[in-house]
Amino acid sequence: MMRLLQITADLLIKKKLTLSVCESCTGGMFGSMITRVPGSSRYFSGGIIAYSNRVKESLAGVRCKTLKGYGAVSAEVAKEMARGVRRRFKTDLGIAITGIAGPSGGTSKKPVGTVYICIAEGHSVHTEHHIFIGKRDQIRKAACARAFRFLSLLLIRNEKS
Amino acid sequence: MMRLLQITADLLIKKKLTLSVCESCTGGMFGSMITRVPGSSRYFSGGIIAYSNRVKESLAGVRCKTLKGYGAVSAEVAKEMARGVRRRFKTDLGIAITGIAGPSGGTSKKPVGTVYICIAEGHSVHTEHHIFIGKRDQIRKAACARAFRFLSLLLIRNEKS
Repeated sequence: MMRLLQITADLLIKKKLTLSVCESCTGGMFGSMITRVPGSSRYFSGGIIAYSNRVKESLAGVRCKTLKGYGAVSAEVAKEMARGVRRRFKTDLGIAITGIAGPSGGTSKKPVGTVYICIAEGHSVHTEHHIFIGKRDQIRKAACARAFRFLSLLLIRNEKS
Repeated sequence: MMRLLQITADLLIKKKLTLSVCESCTGGMFGSMITRVPGSSRYFSGGIIAYSNRVKESLAGVRCKTLKGYGAVSAEVAKEMARGVRRRFKTDLGIAITGIAGPSGGTSKKPVGTVYICIAEGHSVHTEHHIFIGKRDQIRKAACARAFRFLSLLLIRNEKS
């Protein structure tokens, strides 16, 4: 994992890109992982732990009607979280994670383990949907690991294009 | 550690208190630990990962002159972070952690491992100053563990008084 963190860090530095995060189910774990790398302040500004819906609205800029219409765990809310944190923190990239870590809160349409990860860059947003298997903390860790892979692949792809 | 998390959770629920966090050197680790406990949304609203000084100012409400006068790692900044997040998130308690996790950034007056933890409740603020020994991630983990102990002891003390 530390290798993936370092690869992501090196790519961000090389491309002179800055990053902010907006986390719901992971509660700060993704930010904690980013800042494990010494010198992460070069590219990481910080983020919002948007655990309650009220914070998703008031700080992350998610619209009430999006929350009501699609639910807090949805691609639509993930997109608004990523765009909102990017805008508020004035960073090149904004990453959002929202999901159901369990053990309760799952439904037949959105079972425990459902996670949406979204990366906003410029006017684009890139979204992934996953259903992770495991206990609460395994799901949260899997979501963070997947978010790092998502980010690093996006940075590598941009490099090639 | 999980036992301490659960004790803190039980106390917060029993006292019907809500909590928000403002993290600098721990980068979200404290929030991640709070949300390991299922049902933490009952008392945890979220927080700000105030990694850069700009975010400490713009989101956490730390004054520019406090940052310049005392430095980002100081009791004064920790207090403004704790008060700021409590106010912005409208929670009963606000907890802030700011420190130097290293390996660089230390000085003779503020060596690597220097950490300030502050809890704001009502008009009161409670501050602790520590110098933890170890590598970057050990210092960050020690700071979070100590913040949990600080919070739980405060909740227990309030219970008795």
